[in-house]
Amino acid sequence: MFNPVEIIKLKRENRPIPKDSLTRFIKEYASGRIPDYQMSAFLMAVFLQGMTVEEMVTLVHSMRDSGKVLDLSDIDGFKLGKHSTGGVGDKISLVLAPLLASMGISIPMISGRGLGHSGGTLDKLESIPGLNPVVSLAKFKRVLKKVGFVISGQTDELVPADRRMYSLRDVTATIESIPLVVGSIMSKKLAEDLDGLLLDVKTGKGAFFRSQKDAIHLAKLLIQVGLDFGVETRALLTDMDQPTGCAVGNWLEVQEAIQCLRGEGPSDTMELVYSLGIVALRIAGDVDAPGEIVSKLQQSISSGRALEKFFAYVHELGGDTSVIEKDKRFPLPREHQVLSQKAGNLSAIDAYEIGMASCLAGAGRLRMEDDVDHFAGILLKKQVGEGVEIGEPLATFYTRKDIKPEIENQIRNAITISETPGKPVKPVRGEIDRNGRLMSFGI
Amino acid sequence: MFNPVEIIKLKRENRPIPKDSLTRFIKEYASGRIPDYQMSAFLMAVFLQGMTVEEMVTLVHSMRDSGKVLDLSDIDGFKLGKHSTGGVGDKISLVLAPLLASMGISIPMISGRGLGHSGGTLDKLESIPGLNPVVSLAKFKRVLKKVGFVISGQTDELVPADRRMYSLRDVTATIESIPLVVGSIMSKKLAEDLDGLLLDVKTGKGAFFRSQKDAIHLAKLLIQVGLDFGVETRALLTDMDQPTGCAVGNWLEVQEAIQCLRGEGPSDTMELVYSLGIVALRIAGDVDAPGEIVSKLQQSISSGRALEKFFAYVHELGGDTSVIEKDKRFPLPREHQVLSQKAGNLSAIDAYEIGMASCLAGAGRLRMEDDVDHFAGILLKKQVGEGVEIGEPLATFYTRKDIKPEIENQIRNAITISETPGKPVKPVRGEIDRNGRLMSFGI
Repeated sequence: MFNPVEIIKLKRENRPIPKDSLTRFIKEYASGRIPDYQMSAFLMAVFLQGMTVEEMVTLVHSMRDSGKVLDLSDIDGFKLGKHSTGGVGDKISLVLAPLLASMGISIPMISGRGLGHSGGTLDKLESIPGLNPVVSLAKFKRVLKKVGFVISGQTDELVPADRRMYSLRDVTATIESIPLVVGSIMSKKLAEDLDGLLLDVKTGKGAFFRSQKDAIHLAKLLIQVGLDFGVETRALLTDMDQPTGCAVGNWLEVQEAIQCLRGEGPSDTMELVYSLGIVALRIAGDVDAPGEIVSKLQQSISSGRALEKFFAYVHELGGDTSVIEKDKRFPLPREHQVLSQKAGNLSAIDAYEIGMASCLAGAGRLRMEDDVDHFAGILLKKQVGEGVEIGEPLATFYTRKDIKPEIENQIRNAITISETPGKPVKPVRGEIDRNGRLMSFGI
Repeated sequence: MFNPVEIIKLKRENRPIPKDSLTRFIKEYASGRIPDYQMSAFLMAVFLQGMTVEEMVTLVHSMRDSGKVLDLSDIDGFKLGKHSTGGVGDKISLVLAPLLASMGISIPMISGRGLGHSGGTLDKLESIPGLNPVVSLAKFKRVLKKVGFVISGQTDELVPADRRMYSLRDVTATIESIPLVVGSIMSKKLAEDLDGLLLDVKTGKGAFFRSQKDAIHLAKLLIQVGLDFGVETRALLTDMDQPTGCAVGNWLEVQEAIQCLRGEGPSDTMELVYSLGIVALRIAGDVDAPGEIVSKLQQSISSGRALEKFFAYVHELGGDTSVIEKDKRFPLPREHQVLSQKAGNLSAIDAYEIGMASCLAGAGRLRMEDDVDHFAGILLKKQVGEGVEIGEPLATFYTRKDIKPEIENQIRNAITISETPGKPVKPVRGEIDRNGRLMSFGI
């Protein structure tokens, strides 16, 4: 007889859970026959006792199968998924998806919203007037077929188990669990009917997993699960000690993404785009040398084909392309300057603190039900490694909130100015293989 | 700001929870403002990470204060609580409470029901026709004042937090947690407004904590918490490898308790009564030598005063004393014999297996909502250490169920007959002090 208590007990005692039992447990939960209080005890037991790779594969399988799974068999070309573990200023998907689509790779991408210091791709897209990124599965496929990529919010049809489990984890202190993170990420990605999966696993102060060891461990498990499902999965370990690029905040990041699609983005962001682009094309079977792949990526940008894809996508989802084509300025919230109070070298920008400052300005949310101000945010005026004089602007911020001094202070505290020259941060730390080895990676 | 998630997180990370926060967490749960799913995550974290003694004291305090607390200040004499951690055939409370009451000690006792192999005092009392042991607090006090002891079921007014938490633990695999057991036992006992507390901590095959080490650890914590509340608390460690006495099953145990109150109970049961009686009287301030205390206990029995107290209690709670005074036989379910298939020495009777056999016969329940057959049960015909011939009765069982062969097999499997002579089991393993030291204890 199936007894949920026995399954909780097995995990509590760190004994393996039979595949059938775990599958049934997730299925019954997703259909409402196992109550939240039993799932939350199970989640805490998983948090503290962990899971075997076999259990994670079963978890991902049963979570994915709690809803519909995309069928993209009628879409031509290689279907590549992309996932970033999240951070501050991470607008890479907005650049990489149209860029890869312009090179013939299909990119079906289901994305999420930001929480706390960390941003979400959906919030960024919604800052484009008129654009509604939550579409039906039929429209998802139509846009993917027509444009070559699509970024959309999670619908009720896909992976309902993840939505219920994520909400429950949020209120039971079981978010930061590697097996549960693997379950959540991979159940969604593997519902996308992919041929390959590119993972951008971030580590550092503004990342979900701050320690490089944890991030590598996560990457290894994500790769193992992906491969177990027959999906060619590769991961780069990238830096999130400092924010990606200069823009933090939804509309500001869309603007910076467009700069990147014009080949004019900040150097760290362009390096991330090209590095992830190399891995993406290799997953899709490109065997050229890194330099040659970068040339192809650059050609797609300089020809305007990548930007065209982006505009086509925005148009399909109801967005006002005139606003972005002409780089027309919105009536942004008032601009405030943060000026340097000392001279020296900018040696660090704490991504977590900048993320929280942006959240404070209104660009993020502390709870999932909060609204965001799409036009609030921060523009960093200096990058790590640059010199700075007294009175020079360190950053600009935009807010409608009446707490300017708090935001200014938060930004100031995030930036370290020292006497010795700082070194620019390497955005890519390396590639992680299926055994969790970190291998050097350079363009 | 009070945030339940932060408290769950502290426990998850095995960091100390501030007293105020833990108190608030329990209070908000008891009043329904914290949902079950947060409490169950917390319970699992406690299960796996444990609790400090300070946290346990706070847990007991806040659980106790979730409802009314008895005020027995107008009851004369020393007020002694008694708690057994439970087992098979444990009818000691039915003997000890009237016995101590007959010697001038007041015994307010709130008891529970049986589950699985283990019996409950309330079920035993309810086997007496007409007796309803669930009474109001007003009646509880009235009977205590008039008779000198009272055994009653938990009402809704006392310790509601425990009732909710226990139900939740039952369905989330968080029952066998020492801090949670301490919270459950002590919150109820300390709501009884006691001067002293006598603990019968059982260990062995039929006990809740099978290993002596765990049982001693539990006893130590129960004593520490009791003393922290200013209640003189002492514990005996007693054997539950084999059942207590010969009778297992509700009405059968009431009959055996009456035999004990007549001084005619099985030797192990009488030894337990006298040993716990010694500790009880010492808690109440008696400094006489053990032998002298036993003499006084025996006088109370031989004079009939102890049995009179029992009858008075039964009468007050609406029970039919004629049935028990005259040892009148009920129409019991049909009697079945288990005859020995070999000759030798009875070397072990497995209390757990006997408890499950009794449950199978209908005397116990597998789930809290099941009904019990008050007249089903087992009478053991041989004790450990006795010789046995082929065809001699090992046990008699009473059941209305149509599974006689299963019950007979279960009883047979519980009894070990070997060639070498068995040694009678010592019912008392020793007294446990507040540091968890096991000290020898003999009458």
